Amino acid sequence: MSTEGQTITCKAAVAWEAGKDLTIEDIEVAPPKAHEVRVQIYYTGVCHTDAYTLSGKDPEGAFPIVLGHEGAGIVESVGEGVTNVKKGDNVVCLYTPECKECKFCKSGKTNLCGKIRATQGKGVMPDGTSRFKCKGKELLHFMGTSTFSQYTVVADISVVAITDKAPMDRTCLLGCGITTGYGAAVISAGNGGIEKGSNVAVFGAGCVGLSVIQGAVKNGAAKIIVVDVNDAKKEWSTKFGATDFVNPKELKEGETIQERLVEMTDGGCDYTFDCTGNVHVMRSALEACHKGWGESIIIGVAAAGQEISTRPFQLVTGRRWKGCAFGGVKGRTQLPGLVDDYMNGKLKVDEFITHRQPLSGINTAFHDMHSGDCIRCVVDMRKL
Amino acid sequence: MSTEGQTITCKAAVAWEAGKDLTIEDIEVAPPKAHEVRVQIYYTGVCHTDAYTLSGKDPEGAFPIVLGHEGAGIVESVGEGVTNVKKGDNVVCLYTPECKECKFCKSGKTNLCGKIRATQGKGVMPDGTSRFKCKGKELLHFMGTSTFSQYTVVADISVVAITDKAPMDRTCLLGCGITTGYGAAVISAGNGGIEKGSNVAVFGAGCVGLSVIQGAVKNGAAKIIVVDVNDAKKEWSTKFGATDFVNPKELKEGETIQERLVEMTDGGCDYTFDCTGNVHVMRSALEACHKGWGESIIIGVAAAGQEISTRPFQLVTGRRWKGCAFGGVKGRTQLPGLVDDYMNGKLKVDEFITHRQPLSGINTAFHDMHSGDCIRCVVDMRKL
Repeated sequence: MSTEGQTITCKAAVAWEAGKDLTIEDIEVAPPKAHEVRVQIYYTGVCHTDAYTLSGKDPEGAFPIVLGHEGAGIVESVGEGVTNVKKGDNVVCLYTPECKECKFCKSGKTNLCGKIRATQGKGVMPDGTSRFKCKGKELLHFMGTSTFSQYTVVADISVVAITDKAPMDRTCLLGCGITTGYGAAVISAGNGGIEKGSNVAVFGAGCVGLSVIQGAVKNGAAKIIVVDVNDAKKEWSTKFGATDFVNPKELKEGETIQERLVEMTDGGCDYTFDCTGNVHVMRSALEACHKGWGESIIIGVAAAGQEISTRPFQLVTGRRWKGCAFGGVKGRTQLPGLVDDYMNGKLKVDEFITHRQPLSGINTAFHDMHSGDCIRCVVDMRKL
Repeated sequence: MSTEGQTITCKAAVAWEAGKDLTIEDIEVAPPKAHEVRVQIYYTGVCHTDAYTLSGKDPEGAFPIVLGHEGAGIVESVGEGVTNVKKGDNVVCLYTPECKECKFCKSGKTNLCGKIRATQGKGVMPDGTSRFKCKGKELLHFMGTSTFSQYTVVADISVVAITDKAPMDRTCLLGCGITTGYGAAVISAGNGGIEKGSNVAVFGAGCVGLSVIQGAVKNGAAKIIVVDVNDAKKEWSTKFGATDFVNPKELKEGETIQERLVEMTDGGCDYTFDCTGNVHVMRSALEACHKGWGESIIIGVAAAGQEISTRPFQLVTGRRWKGCAFGGVKGRTQLPGLVDDYMNGKLKVDEFITHRQPLSGINTAFHDMHSGDCIRCVVDMRKL
C-alpha cells in the first residue's frame, strides 16, 4: 500500500528537553509539500553536533526536536515541483543545502547556500511549519535533516541522489564527518586543496581529523602530523596515512605544541586543521603555521560565546586564518564524486565504523561517542 | 674628492632615548663592507613606525638609534661583491629586503625575505656590527635602513635602483606607506589582488589607507567605502577614488560599523583593510566581510601585547583573516614597476605630501604626523 500523500506514523528518537536522553516515540510525519522530499532513513551516524545541541549548551537549540544530520535512506515520496530526486532514489541528506540559485551558490566561492538558512536555523521547513508531530505536539526539525526518525521530510535542495550500489550504512557518514574533513583538505585548503609536498598538521584525530588525513594523503602531502591527547589515536592516524604523531601532553618542559610543530617542519606547517572545536587549540594551529604562507583552517565548532585570539603580528607576517563548514563541499554537485571515490577505493569509509546500534540503542551511541575508542557509531533505523 | 672607502662625517637625527625628541648630531658613517651599500639620503618620509619605536612602546626598540625607513637617495659607494646597484644609482631603501635566495624568497609566496631578519631586528648590519658612531658611541641601525642620516649603510639586498627621472622627494614615499597600501590591494588581497567589481572597505585614511583606495580603483573595485573618525578624511578619500565615507562616530544608536557596512554592501564586503593598527578595528574589519568569501587584510601594526579576537564562527562561515607587510611587495623585483606606475600617472604620490621640513625640523615632522591634516611630511636631508 502506497504511503504517498499520507501521514506516516513511525519510530523516532525524540529529544524532549536539553540534557536528557532521547526517547523512542511513535511520531507522525506529514507528507512532503511542494519542493520537499520524504525520505525513509535507513542509517544515521551520531555526531558531536547532535550531542552539543542535546546538551543544551547551544543557545540556538530548541526543544522538542528530532536531531540527527548524518543520514542515508531512500526517497519515499516527493512533493510538487521536485525534479532532482524521485521515489526510490538512494539519497544522502544535506545539512548544507545547495540551491544553485542564491547569491552564495552562484558566486562559485562557497558552499554556504543561503536559500533556506533562516527557517533551517529556526527548526522548521521553508514554509515556516513542521512536518513532525508526537503526542499532539509539533516537533522541531534539526539542521534541515532530522535523521533520527525512520521517516523525515527535507527540502529538495537538502538531499542528493547517489548510486544505489553504495551501502547506506557507509554513505550516511558522508552526510557530515568524513566529507567535512576530506573536503577541508581537498577543496577548502589553499586555492582548491592542499598542494603536493605540503607539510600538514591535524589537531584532533576523530572522524573529521582522520578524514583530513585522507585528503592530505590524496593530495600528496609530505608530512602529515597528527596532534591528539589520546595516544590510542596514533595507531588510527597511521592507518589513515599520517606520518607523525604528537601527544601535546608529552612535550618538553616549557615547550608549546606550536614550537614543536615549527621545529618538526623547519619553520612551520603549510596547512593546519583544527578538528577539536577548542579555541585554544585553534590558536596553536594558527601559530604552528609557516611564516609567509601557512594557512590554518578551523573545522571544529566551538562552544557558544568562546572566541579565538592571537597577536595580529601572526597574520601580518603572512599566516592565514580561515575555516569551512561541510568541508566546503557543495552537496548536490560534489557529494556523488565522493561516493565514487569511496566505491573506487580512494576514500576510506568502512574503517570509521567502530560501533553499531539499533534505533533503540541510540542513547548508547551518544555515550559511546565520548569514549576514546569510538570513531563513529552507525545507527540502524529499521532495527528496534 | 672621493669619499669612497673613507668614514664620512655627516648630520643625522639621533634618537638617544625613548620618548625624547631626536637631536641633530654629527655622526660618523663607516664605509660599506662586503655586500653593503652606502647611500646618500636625499629625502625621507616620517612614518608611524618611527614614532612607535621612538615612543618606547616597542618592546624590541633599543637606543641610541638612527630611525627612518622611508628614504630615497643616491649610492655613494658599494662594498665588495655588490652587483645589484652601483655608485651614482638612484635608489629606494627597502626595510623588507629581497635576497632571492632564501626559503621565503624562493617560495614565490611571500615578500618576507629571511636572510638578514635576525640582525636587522637587533639593529645591526648582517655581520653583527654597526656602521654608525656618534660621540664615541655606536648607534644602532633601524629596520635595515636608518634613513634619518645624510648617509646610511644598508645591505645590498635592502636597496633597489630606480629611474633617475623620478623625483626623490616622491620616490622616498614608495619606501613604505604608499607601497604598503597599494600592494595590499593589488598584490596581497585575494589571489594576486582585488577582483574587478569587488566591494571594499578601508579602515583609516592615512597614507596607507589612501593607497589602498588607489589599488582598489586600479583593480576596478565597485564600492570603496572609507571608515575614519576624522571627517576631514572624506574629501581626501574622494580625491583618491573612494565612493563612500562612514564616520563610525555617527552611527545610529546601537549600530556597529560592521552592521552598517554589511547593510551598505548587501551582505558584507569582499575585501576589508585595516590601516589603523587598532585591534578592535581589526575585528570590525573582519566581521564586515561577506559570509562565504569576504577577506580581511591587516596592514596596521598593533601595539605590543595586543591581541585580535573574534568568534570562530566568523571563519567557519567563510570569512578569511590575513595580513601583509610592505603590501606583499617584493622590493627589488616589484618596486621599479610601482615607480613606473607613478611616472605614467597611474599612481598618485605627489598628493600625499602635505608637509615638508628640513632635517633640522624633523621633530616638527613627528608632531605634524599626529595632526589630522598631515598625510606625509617629507624631510629634505640636505637642508639644515
